[in-house]
Amino acid sequence: MLNTLIVGATGYAGAELAAYLNRHPHMNITGLTVSAQSADAGKLLSDLHPQLKGIVDLPVLPLKDVAEAAKGVDVVFLATAHEVSHDLAPQFLAAGCVVFDLSGAFRVSKPEFYTEFYGFEHQHLDLLDKAVYGLAEWQADKLKDAQLIAVPGCYPTASQLALKPLIENGLLNDSQWPVINATSGVSGAGRKATLGNSFCEVSLQPYKLFSHRHQPEIAEHLGVPVIFTPHLGNFPRGILATITCRLNAGVTEEDVAEAFHNAYHDKPLVRLYTRGVPALKDVVGLPFCDIGFAVKGEHLIVVATEDNVLKGASAQAVQCMNIRFGFPETQSLL
Amino acid sequence: MLNTLIVGATGYAGAELAAYLNRHPHMNITGLTVSAQSADAGKLLSDLHPQLKGIVDLPVLPLKDVAEAAKGVDVVFLATAHEVSHDLAPQFLAAGCVVFDLSGAFRVSKPEFYTEFYGFEHQHLDLLDKAVYGLAEWQADKLKDAQLIAVPGCYPTASQLALKPLIENGLLNDSQWPVINATSGVSGAGRKATLGNSFCEVSLQPYKLFSHRHQPEIAEHLGVPVIFTPHLGNFPRGILATITCRLNAGVTEEDVAEAFHNAYHDKPLVRLYTRGVPALKDVVGLPFCDIGFAVKGEHLIVVATEDNVLKGASAQAVQCMNIRFGFPETQSLL
Amino acid sequence: MLNTLIVGATGYAGAELAAYLNRHPHMNITGLTVSAQSADAGKLLSDLHPQLKGIVDLPVLPLKDVAEAAKGVDVVFLATAHEVSHDLAPQFLAAGCVVFDLSGAFRVSKPEFYTEFYGFEHQHLDLLDKAVYGLAEWQADKLKDAQLIAVPGCYPTASQLALKPLIENGLLNDSQWPVINATSGVSGAGRKATLGNSFCEVSLQPYKLFSHRHQPEIAEHLGVPVIFTPHLGNFPRGILATITCRLNAGVTEEDVAEAFHNAYHDKPLVRLYTRGVPALKDVVGLPFCDIGFAVKGEHLIVVATEDNVLKGASAQAVQCMNIRFGFPETQSLL
Amino acid sequence: MLNTLIVGATGYAGAELAAYLNRHPHMNITGLTVSAQSADAGKLLSDLHPQLKGIVDLPVLPLKDVAEAAKGVDVVFLATAHEVSHDLAPQFLAAGCVVFDLSGAFRVSKPEFYTEFYGFEHQHLDLLDKAVYGLAEWQADKLKDAQLIAVPGCYPTASQLALKPLIENGLLNDSQWPVINATSGVSGAGRKATLGNSFCEVSLQPYKLFSHRHQPEIAEHLGVPVIFTPHLGNFPRGILATITCRLNAGVTEEDVAEAFHNAYHDKPLVRLYTRGVPALKDVVGLPFCDIGFAVKGEHLIVVATEDNVLKGASAQAVQCMNIRFGFPETQSLL
Repeated sequence: MLNTLIVGATGYAGAELAAYLNRHPHMNITGLTVSAQSADAGKLLSDLHPQLKGIVDLPVLPLKDVAEAAKGVDVVFLATAHEVSHDLAPQFLAAGCVVFDLSGAFRVSKPEFYTEFYGFEHQHLDLLDKAVYGLAEWQADKLKDAQLIAVPGCYPTASQLALKPLIENGLLNDSQWPVINATSGVSGAGRKATLGNSFCEVSLQPYKLFSHRHQPEIAEHLGVPVIFTPHLGNFPRGILATITCRLNAGVTEEDVAEAFHNAYHDKPLVRLYTRGVPALKDVVGLPFCDIGFAVKGEHLIVVATEDNVLKGASAQAVQCMNIRFGFPETQSLL
Repeated sequence: MLNTLIVGATGYAGAELAAYLNRHPHMNITGLTVSAQSADAGKLLSDLHPQLKGIVDLPVLPLKDVAEAAKGVDVVFLATAHEVSHDLAPQFLAAGCVVFDLSGAFRVSKPEFYTEFYGFEHQHLDLLDKAVYGLAEWQADKLKDAQLIAVPGCYPTASQLALKPLIENGLLNDSQWPVINATSGVSGAGRKATLGNSFCEVSLQPYKLFSHRHQPEIAEHLGVPVIFTPHLGNFPRGILATITCRLNAGVTEEDVAEAFHNAYHDKPLVRLYTRGVPALKDVVGLPFCDIGFAVKGEHLIVVATEDNVLKGASAQAVQCMNIRFGFPETQSLL
Repeated sequence: MLNTLIVGATGYAGAELAAYLNRHPHMNITGLTVSAQSADAGKLLSDLHPQLKGIVDLPVLPLKDVAEAAKGVDVVFLATAHEVSHDLAPQFLAAGCVVFDLSGAFRVSKPEFYTEFYGFEHQHLDLLDKAVYGLAEWQADKLKDAQLIAVPGCYPTASQLALKPLIENGLLNDSQWPVINATSGVSGAGRKATLGNSFCEVSLQPYKLFSHRHQPEIAEHLGVPVIFTPHLGNFPRGILATITCRLNAGVTEEDVAEAFHNAYHDKPLVRLYTRGVPALKDVVGLPFCDIGFAVKGEHLIVVATEDNVLKGASAQAVQCMNIRFGFPETQSLL
Repeated sequence: MLNTLIVGATGYAGAELAAYLNRHPHMNITGLTVSAQSADAGKLLSDLHPQLKGIVDLPVLPLKDVAEAAKGVDVVFLATAHEVSHDLAPQFLAAGCVVFDLSGAFRVSKPEFYTEFYGFEHQHLDLLDKAVYGLAEWQADKLKDAQLIAVPGCYPTASQLALKPLIENGLLNDSQWPVINATSGVSGAGRKATLGNSFCEVSLQPYKLFSHRHQPEIAEHLGVPVIFTPHLGNFPRGILATITCRLNAGVTEEDVAEAFHNAYHDKPLVRLYTRGVPALKDVVGLPFCDIGFAVKGEHLIVVATEDNVLKGASAQAVQCMNIRFGFPETQSLL
């Protein structure tokens, strides 16, 4: 039985993490915390997320002293803002915890990336080297020894799971950048009050054209440039990415199918469509990434869907943890 | 040509008002204003409400000096918070303007009502007496001379239009209070950032049971007690009220139909259903209140729908103004 | 290990049943069937409901010969149309199966009810007597010996769970009928193509005023008349019922709270709100019925929510089965 | 005053057409018709589309004899299925009517296109030559003499308005096909009952990858190949197209802005964004196509939005008619 602490438990990913870990046979939730300044400190998680009433009725306590909070804790999940994770991760590592960070603080190895895209100067370059990028299907080996796991977020998970088998197999024509059009549910923006997230203001719209911080993250981990255009969708949960690529001459539909099959036939949380492409609704509330594709001539369209809060955050964090500690990969996720 | 000023033009009702008045052949918009503290001051209305781009591209200016702002203005619309309207209305009246107030500041004649339900002590008791309650279908005569019109809001408009013909004709059994269950779109809460209005938090839910301020307003103007239960609905616009009443012994379906017919057959913004009941979608974006009903034995159910921002706010304000100045009642509304 | 057959597995309730039973440690799904005429016959359940891909990939076979289909089967779930259940239930009972019927075919004891509200003449009056009404929280004793369980549907479950404690404790004033206003997601109308269910036609609207077949069902089982007004809501799943009642003189808020507490404090699938009332979103996807209430003077409003396809259909069927066979009541539901 | 007939008035585009023409000062609706087989024949348009109650209460009559129906009619709108338009257009033309066809029957000049993409053999090759493609902003001259106008539909209108200024000005690098990702509201599929359009089945999903009939239509009229990927969105109305292109070396953001400005600065129904890109909600219910863009290096993203039933169908048909007969271009549209 591993003792676990969820830091930043009040957001959408934090609440789902709590639900997963609460039913995990090898995990014992020893604490849920939130920033000491938060008005939510002291409330029950199920008061903030009433769907958890009767399921996870634990209090969310203010995080004051990290050393104190880390006592007896084996595993920490950081569902916190980037800067907060950046500061907390080293402290929990120093206390001997294995840290799963759901923020962007350790996802990219280059320190200048944080200055440019996150607006802070990274102070822990050693950890940038040591952190394992938790794209679970592709990092199983590295995860087994990892102390700090940087769990990728929603857009990068769908985008990379869709593109990586193609790139690894050399199927894409590099004269043309893959065009990733992705639409995310509003939960992607977090549990907070902004005019842009208010019900009457939300509608389908692209945002941050050519300038979203996930573009360089995707590009670094794939090793190729991409055009990434995120959209806000008028739904609470889920991501659908439609990715248009050019194939190398002679690459066939069968080659593409084989690349996906080889990559994922034994991966329980990727569901490959052999006919048609996935629809968003079929993955909402589930821990999968669903992938389908179509080929015509030199062009390929890959469609990937996932629940942004699950495979795009909390479920993938638990999946990484299951791999890290040798539990069944889908334990408590299905 | 009347010169008109819209105070509080940046909200949902303000924007619709601007669109109606902009196309009104007898009105000239001389200014749109917002609180001097607002971050929106100085922007174009069409930057805040891009649907108005190319239609109403006027700037929204900070309201600093009321006397200055009122110069040359014939008609003022206050689409402002209750306390703000309470303070501004006397000033614009003193400047000789006819004032249409879309807030709750002058809707009920009893001063204690404001202390209890709005949290401020009313300072203008004389205006409470003089203000005409702008339930347009029932106040045409009084509106013609009014200087201050308190335009009723969304729930009270639908509820009263549905119940008033029954009460005026003595059809309801007073042993039992009418039960008003009403569901409103999120725009009813205004254009602002709150966690409760954020996209992922909105879902069908009753609120303020037995304690919403519209309950005493409806009761005062109808002259009977009511049970009013508002609900938040997962849609941006519209109100549907389902009202269950007990009829006096002997009252028939025909009596009910006749009461509605007599009240509204010559009212262009009330659409009576002679078969079935209205659905919400059919009135969204339109200035009507739609009403249908069913009778069984001693029980009556009346269903009333409207667009909360239109007949429940801006369209009714324009309707009142059309009546006040002798323009066709539906001018610029249809 | 009990062998189970789901008849009518292709609908929304059937698919959820399959998911619950698939993960039930004591159940073995031996077959999923659909009408032999259905175009869905022969497909995988996960082709019709892709969310089940990788979870329940069983084929849905045409039901041809009941005796054949019943061989070796211990438990049958009928997620079929009322007339179909009416015909099939006796045959499966004759074959020795325990039958859980999710249709309306055996929910009311009076045969004339079927003629009037379902349009067919009931042929199995003996079964009407023997059938146990599966409102699980109130029928645990009877369920333990039942062979035919008539699982109540969505509106009656929410309405009765909300009202029964009040009626059993004599708290309601019978001079006034409880007013049940309930709004259901579109899934309540089943998985089928109709213009009324098409995306652009759905909007909040009451229907079947004073004439819905659930009104007499609720009234019979509660033993009091009610006014029941169903509404279609613009969401796929869930029911919210707002119920307005008159209390007997002297009944207090504490009396109401106590009645609910006594009825449900040990019932795992009813969640009582001691503060506030439930919102729809917090129960969607979960097997609970959530209940909250408010009292003012002689009036009481009770709010009950549930997922219409779960506690209002499939989850309650599994809950009844768990009780019937002595499994933990929430086995595989949470 | 021109007499006009709407054939196929019961669909979403037909109803909007009726509303526009009903308020047009130079048009007189002499008839609304529907297929003689339709169950809607004989009903009021406002019974089928209750939002038109009190606005357009005309009956929809079965179309039996075209010659009879065409008597005294100057202008015919065909809001009918492709095959129906194909058969009716020549008959109404022979009767001397000017015909605005909202179907796909005359949009592309090559007869083999109909065999391949519409499944019928075109019989009126002379009309394919004579028909004017009603992309209003680009065809004003030709429209002035046209007898048969093939009004383009939703996807092609948004896509072409976005791309045509770039192509006409030679800004795009033809080594790479423009990637059009477009999401349409469910009304795009018409007013009919299908499982795919039913409320619970709709969710964001691409469809007809590489095989939608609008792909060759767009390509023919633009004169360049394109990759067109349509998506179904979970909303009733509107289209958002995100189009990714490669610019020729040296083309700047200013060049792009200038091309759009030159093309549309005097076109009242195209709204150019000089900052940011449009959101879907801001154009729903309005007759505009909104266009914005962003450039980075050699890549360009153009975003175009419109109401698929308005600028993508009925409003554009009325716009074409206004141009054809010399009325103000936006008459009755704003």
